[in-house]
Amino acid sequence: KVEDGNDVSEINDAFNRAKDESTKPSLIIVKTLIGYGSPNKQGKASAHGEALGVEELEATKKFFEWNYEPFEVPEEIKNLTTQFRMDGIAREKEWKSQTGLYQKAFPDLFKEFEDWFSNMDYSKILLEDHDFWKFEKPMATRIASGLLINRLADVMPNLIGGSADLAPSNKTNISNKGDFSAENRAGGNLHFGVREHAMSAIGNGIQVHGGLKVFVSTFFVFTDYMKAGMRLSSIMKLPVTYVLTHDSIGVGEDGPTHEPVEQLAALRSMPGMTVFRPADAHETAAGWYLAATKKDGPVALILTRQTLPLYEETGVEALKGAYIINKSLETKTIPDIILMASGSELKLVIEAAATLAQEGIVARVVSVPSFELFDEQEETYKEEVLPSSVTARIAVEAGSSFGWHRFTGLKGRVIGLDRYGASGKAESLFEAFGFTAENVISVSKEILKA
Amino acid sequence: KVEDGNDVSEINDAFNRAKDESTKPSLIIVKTLIGYGSPNKQGKASAHGEALGVEELEATKKFFEWNYEPFEVPEEIKNLTTQFRMDGIAREKEWKSQTGLYQKAFPDLFKEFEDWFSNMDYSKILLEDHDFWKFEKPMATRIASGLLINRLADVMPNLIGGSADLAPSNKTNISNKGDFSAENRAGGNLHFGVREHAMSAIGNGIQVHGGLKVFVSTFFVFTDYMKAGMRLSSIMKLPVTYVLTHDSIGVGEDGPTHEPVEQLAALRSMPGMTVFRPADAHETAAGWYLAATKKDGPVALILTRQTLPLYEETGVEALKGAYIINKSLETKTIPDIILMASGSELKLVIEAAATLAQEGIVARVVSVPSFELFDEQEETYKEEVLPSSVTARIAVEAGSSFGWHRFTGLKGRVIGLDRYGASGKAESLFEAFGFTAENVISVSKEILKA
Repeated sequence: KVEDGNDVSEINDAFNRAKDESTKPSLIIVKTLIGYGSPNKQGKASAHGEALGVEELEATKKFFEWNYEPFEVPEEIKNLTTQFRMDGIAREKEWKSQTGLYQKAFPDLFKEFEDWFSNMDYSKILLEDHDFWKFEKPMATRIASGLLINRLADVMPNLIGGSADLAPSNKTNISNKGDFSAENRAGGNLHFGVREHAMSAIGNGIQVHGGLKVFVSTFFVFTDYMKAGMRLSSIMKLPVTYVLTHDSIGVGEDGPTHEPVEQLAALRSMPGMTVFRPADAHETAAGWYLAATKKDGPVALILTRQTLPLYEETGVEALKGAYIINKSLETKTIPDIILMASGSELKLVIEAAATLAQEGIVARVVSVPSFELFDEQEETYKEEVLPSSVTARIAVEAGSSFGWHRFTGLKGRVIGLDRYGASGKAESLFEAFGFTAENVISVSKEILKA
Repeated sequence: KVEDGNDVSEINDAFNRAKDESTKPSLIIVKTLIGYGSPNKQGKASAHGEALGVEELEATKKFFEWNYEPFEVPEEIKNLTTQFRMDGIAREKEWKSQTGLYQKAFPDLFKEFEDWFSNMDYSKILLEDHDFWKFEKPMATRIASGLLINRLADVMPNLIGGSADLAPSNKTNISNKGDFSAENRAGGNLHFGVREHAMSAIGNGIQVHGGLKVFVSTFFVFTDYMKAGMRLSSIMKLPVTYVLTHDSIGVGEDGPTHEPVEQLAALRSMPGMTVFRPADAHETAAGWYLAATKKDGPVALILTRQTLPLYEETGVEALKGAYIINKSLETKTIPDIILMASGSELKLVIEAAATLAQEGIVARVVSVPSFELFDEQEETYKEEVLPSSVTARIAVEAGSSFGWHRFTGLKGRVIGLDRYGASGKAESLFEAFGFTAENVISVSKEILKA
């Protein structure tokens, strides 16, 4: 406890004691007076919420015996600054000499250290890694994500991450890494406990420190508890990966409190956050590729609890954010209608398009794993995928329709969920809320008739 | 501490001790085994995340010696249920006789008690209260809100509320009510401390209990810390009022961490939450009218720090969610372009429309304080305000454009803020980010040319 916050040596002592403490964290409490030195505002709320103002600033300077013009730097301060700089140069030299010795003694370890701290680019390695992208059967995207985390860990030794007490459900365990703890600093699995906000803050801290590549995980609906931390990842452009499973009413029996509805809109509207909701294991690999290689911001992977089909055409093209599926089935240049979907709903529009084709209606199927990645594409590509001349458009997503009208327009329709979910089996809920191929077909016909 | 969670009498004792404690809260810790009684799943995570399954359920029933068919209710339980019901009837009779005596002794107090707990309808009183709606000069909507809270408190004696340590900035103080505390249970001002999540939970609790009408308040950007609590207000349809000030880059010097950008989208996408962002003091009165009279869900009032003009045409019509301003200036039936805005940006589109008029372009001005209220209107009214034939549409809001395309369509434009803010004076930031009448005019011309 520092009794006088203006006593620099007292503060210095506290810091030194904290540095000497090597077994537990230290808390330093510094007693201060808000606006100290301002004769009329110190100790008042106004010293916090408003600028002091010209007159009060003058009076405050007088109190501190600060007899200089604005932006005038006294000689004494200039000299101190020069001294600090010289100290820094000396310390940097010492550091370089030490690491030079280390490099000679342990060249491999030094190389690893450099790779870790230089934010090594894994894009080539991953793109050429056939096994990374390989899946052979339908599975939940959370399961695919679990496999991908382990494939990544084999390639990226500095991958570390974990879950807020839901690892078995989030499928985040790195199987050959052990748990990180005070005793095992080499562990790769972090157990955050039920502390989502702290988890995102810790993720941000690890990424700011550098050296490690971190992912954090919980149920998608619980992002509400760490939105402020996710916002900081975004503002600070920190490449933290958020692994968010149980992504819709597909959660099932736990009911509305555990079923995300508006969380996609909340994250998509957050500047700097890249939201990626894959439709199958291939797209999940694209999502993890993005997360592993992106260096200037966070990525949120939105994953299902329930099993999804495995498509043939999906994969690395998902990185364009939105792309055409089943293009070969389009029997004319300009389709009659565009059916968009993300994640678990892709299968509904694929099914609907097939049925519509039998009735002579050409429906284009567009998989939309990421709004943000699509926004980054060239205008010509966007126009190719979503031709302006086609105003009959439907978007299907088991979540709030909020935000989708950007792609569907005034004449299109969004089959979304603008209410809270219910408790029941995933299949029953999808059917009850209109997430069926039949409903997509009937809405398509409605639009085409109008 | 209850050592055996299956010992009912031990639990009963704990409850009785908690009831006897009248000066502080009690914490009862009950030791249990998850899935107790299931021979193969007790103590395992699977007993939490999955249904037991037919066989294991059978085995568990055996353990409990429960020899009944599904949905068969044994005689003993039936009798107990009847007994509970009879006890309840007796207690209700006793309550009614007691309150009858109270009503005779204190008729006025009993009337007040009934008004409070019957969720009395204030709509007629407020609509006819000329002073409630009266404003005479430009002011920040947070200032208008502060006046309205005090006007309401004069009419609604059961109004109670407060802020998460920001009352002087949020303008939430009820001046003649004093602070609520253990010593002053009649106080009307709650001091929540910097605990936004707890504040929203307390608000929900007060509203569930009934009798009081509660509002809670903080800076708009800090809703990120209580999103989960606001979601519960929405799911549970609790009429908690959220007073959220400092609603945009207009916050100014505190910079991006304190400037809401995506928070409007986050709340508008939340089913059941009514978001209301007034453009002046008159619309703020409409917002508070809504908050005071709505019984089936929360209302979020989104208010400025900075001063806004006072318009003549604004007022109770704002309850339609979106409505035409300056209709008399429209010189043809169908306008050339529609300019929409909410809150502080309304003045920009009013100014732009005036300039465009001089150049012979008829721009309709639509004030949009609430998406949700507009959604509730008849289709004919919606078509009247936003005629489908007019595809030249601009929406202006100093926040994420996410969600506005529903009204602007594929051919319209949103002048929004799809990045984080910056530190600076409100006026400088509005200008730097394109929130000026000039920019609205130039985008209008661009659209009309296309």
